[in-house]
Amino acid sequence: MPNYKVILAEPKFQGNIGAVARVMKNFGLKDLILVNPCEVGDETYQRAMHAKEIVDNAEICKNLDDSLDGLDYIVGTSGIDSKSDKKHLRNNLSPKEFASKMVGLEAEVGIIFGREDYGLYNDELKRCDTVITIPASGEYPILNISHSASIIFYELFSIQSKGRQKREASRFERDKLMEHFVELLDAVNYPEHKKKNTTVMFQRILGRAVLSKWEFHTLMGVFSKTLKAVSR
Amino acid sequence: MPNYKVILAEPKFQGNIGAVARVMKNFGLKDLILVNPCEVGDETYQRAMHAKEIVDNAEICKNLDDSLDGLDYIVGTSGIDSKSDKKHLRNNLSPKEFASKMVGLEAEVGIIFGREDYGLYNDELKRCDTVITIPASGEYPILNISHSASIIFYELFSIQSKGRQKREASRFERDKLMEHFVELLDAVNYPEHKKKNTTVMFQRILGRAVLSKWEFHTLMGVFSKTLKAVSR
Repeated sequence: MPNYKVILAEPKFQGNIGAVARVMKNFGLKDLILVNPCEVGDETYQRAMHAKEIVDNAEICKNLDDSLDGLDYIVGTSGIDSKSDKKHLRNNLSPKEFASKMVGLEAEVGIIFGREDYGLYNDELKRCDTVITIPASGEYPILNISHSASIIFYELFSIQSKGRQKREASRFERDKLMEHFVELLDAVNYPEHKKKNTTVMFQRILGRAVLSKWEFHTLMGVFSKTLKAVSR
Repeated sequence: MPNYKVILAEPKFQGNIGAVARVMKNFGLKDLILVNPCEVGDETYQRAMHAKEIVDNAEICKNLDDSLDGLDYIVGTSGIDSKSDKKHLRNNLSPKEFASKMVGLEAEVGIIFGREDYGLYNDELKRCDTVITIPASGEYPILNISHSASIIFYELFSIQSKGRQKREASRFERDKLMEHFVELLDAVNYPEHKKKNTTVMFQRILGRAVLSKWEFHTLMGVFSKTLKAVSR
């Protein structure tokens, strides 16, 4: 199974930090990272109940970038699903779909929860390989952060027993693949104004598909051959 | 679908009442019953956020029996799962199993959440037609009441709203994309003996990623540009 790191981006209410720590322990998770958090105090520990050590051991980071260091796979959470499927940023997974993709993966996976009011900013969502959205009522789809966490961790815990063993492409390998993709767009004179969206879209497709090492190497081969052919 | 009533048995912390109300609204539930509750006050409303009306409209009962009046089906929740299935009180359902049993049922269903410290007493569990237990870590299996509620309501909501409405690329479109991929392999002199496996692999990646129509069209654009560049 992956090793999960739970990342709270700029939490504003200390009670929420404790509540997330509690439900992490309920579902067997240990590693909490707080990015530029509010004060951690009494209310945090009250809500954490028997998960005090998760709060005590939480890593504090100044900014989101620092917290993502060394992660193979970055997963955002977002409360708003796309109305239109044109938004490449929002072709999101349900918690169940996400959990099923994590089965058998050996990787460091970071799950980022956004601010209580603004969630994650667009440039933060762009850093994510995939985004989880919890299906909810259109009337009021915004869940409390620890409620979102409960549902996602529950799905991860529930699915754990099953499992395929497959070697996944690492972050480094996926970055290489993305580089090749960008090179290809350049080489074929792909319209400048579309490049950015198309690149993020490709990253998301790879993120959803979760490539094996073999698939990675094969795709790299296709890209190399193509680049060579184009430059002839 | 059933009409659900959410019953909190003697809640002790007013914040929890608000938190449960919020997640009820997140998942489209309306009817809350409070059995001999603590005071309902500012913290309740703060945690309820946009679910104020659920708190305002909550029915207050003196005892659990009163709250069960008129229900067709009574469901308890319990944090401790049976070690042995001999205990008739504890032959419990997971949230997923429970949700699947509710599909298509036309009935008044009450879901009871117990006290924050003692949960439901045995004589209360005996009143229940079935009991839900959330699978959780043996180290600390006791969830916060609103976290339990989140997970159960999420399962009920998810099973109702199967299939997000998203326009997925059709079989025809995916076949077109595969044709382009094969053309590309031909155009770049991809090794003959690898073609078949590589093609199947690409098909599998697309299958796992589940492309939207927009992603399909964008990828088609990349392929066309590339094929044109190669044949120049």
